[in-house]
Amino acid sequence: MNASGKIWTAGLVIIGDEILSGRTHDKNIAQIASWLQVQGIRLSEVRVVPDVEARIVDAVNALRNTYDYLFTTGGIGPTHDDITVDAVAKALGLTVVIHPDARDMLETYYASIGKELTEARLRMARVPEGAELIPNHMSGAPGIKIDSIFLMAGVPHITAGMLDALTGTLEGGAPLLSNTIGCWTAESEVSEILREVEKAHDGCQIGSYPFFREGRVGANFVIRSIDADDLQSCIDTLCEALSEIGLDFTPGGI
Amino acid sequence: MNASGKIWTAGLVIIGDEILSGRTHDKNIAQIASWLQVQGIRLSEVRVVPDVEARIVDAVNALRNTYDYLFTTGGIGPTHDDITVDAVAKALGLTVVIHPDARDMLETYYASIGKELTEARLRMARVPEGAELIPNHMSGAPGIKIDSIFLMAGVPHITAGMLDALTGTLEGGAPLLSNTIGCWTAESEVSEILREVEKAHDGCQIGSYPFFREGRVGANFVIRSIDADDLQSCIDTLCEALSEIGLDFTPGGI
Repeated sequence: MNASGKIWTAGLVIIGDEILSGRTHDKNIAQIASWLQVQGIRLSEVRVVPDVEARIVDAVNALRNTYDYLFTTGGIGPTHDDITVDAVAKALGLTVVIHPDARDMLETYYASIGKELTEARLRMARVPEGAELIPNHMSGAPGIKIDSIFLMAGVPHITAGMLDALTGTLEGGAPLLSNTIGCWTAESEVSEILREVEKAHDGCQIGSYPFFREGRVGANFVIRSIDADDLQSCIDTLCEALSEIGLDFTPGGI
Repeated sequence: MNASGKIWTAGLVIIGDEILSGRTHDKNIAQIASWLQVQGIRLSEVRVVPDVEARIVDAVNALRNTYDYLFTTGGIGPTHDDITVDAVAKALGLTVVIHPDARDMLETYYASIGKELTEARLRMARVPEGAELIPNHMSGAPGIKIDSIFLMAGVPHITAGMLDALTGTLEGGAPLLSNTIGCWTAESEVSEILREVEKAHDGCQIGSYPFFREGRVGANFVIRSIDADDLQSCIDTLCEALSEIGLDFTPGGI
């Protein structure tokens, strides 16, 4: 556990009619969640809202006041449905300005591919006043940091580049450690064991994730703790208990 | 447009530490969103919350009071981390009871695979009082309907079976129609066209979804409307405008 014991948390607002229509499968939740784990920050809530300013403002205000950090994905491109900058500025009571460095980045990028910086493309240099930029080596259009809010792209591989640029820059706590034990059993066979082992190990959580593969039922048990010793002790107890009732298990999960 | 013109809406609460940790990639948002579209119901908000009763209660109460229908996924299995039934009952001020038909279904199912209905498995027959069951042909454990709230499994293919069972049983409005035009262009080349075409066509929305494939940038433009004629007219105008600036386009999207 880190010195203060503080658990750092983050919220995520996904702005996207395309996610709510089912057209696009979201990949940013898992990507951002995994990245946050490594920074010692826990993703605590996600909201997916449509491309409607008032809905974005409400979600941003609800989550920025509840968690240490807030991430958004989507709506920072050059088209008319890209309204995230305006919505976040409104939520914070700020005006929207052209960031000179963003304008330079876009000019350099479009010159490099033989294109002009049109009015539409210049939209991607708009930020809430006082914001900093998050470099994006994929397309020249930066992400945006304002206070503890991070505005990322909707396209997952562009968001990945922005996360790389942020790695190690956010204060976090001890990362939540986890380990998985897989077992070819119906989870209902072992539910009492899971409950009792979790209860006996303070600071550890056990999640049970059933699956059906190769014609057989199985489950992965994910044990989580911020303390490595507690985690190992909980895993040992669980494996012993599974052995006692004659079940084989697979360290690392199935 | 349907007679009343009412737009039916739904919220979705995803209960899952495994989604928030990044371990599991969510597939239920897209699956439920697509299914709702066909029922003439619009998915309007999604919240992902951890396996913590108070957080589930808050999300359920926020969304059930805002939208016509509420779906939840996850947390209805037999293990200690399955607390959705209790949380939804608490949100509604109801007690939790064993549903006799659910008990029968589970008895039949476990007898058919040569197993007993243990105390842990009987947990899957617990429902908020007054609830109806949603059949699940995959595993014997039913989904649950209480008022306009639908409690579904977390495992996507089990949820798929429950959605099948519900098909055609929910009142909805005119389905939101959509069509896609794909174009090998940077979206910033056409942002003004998109804005103007959308503005000229009441009741139509145009979403722009950029991509980077085969070394080239492109974008799909998704046009949506509940009126087929409005939709076609908007598509025609957009295609004309793209042709005028010399762009080829692919009906149906790229």
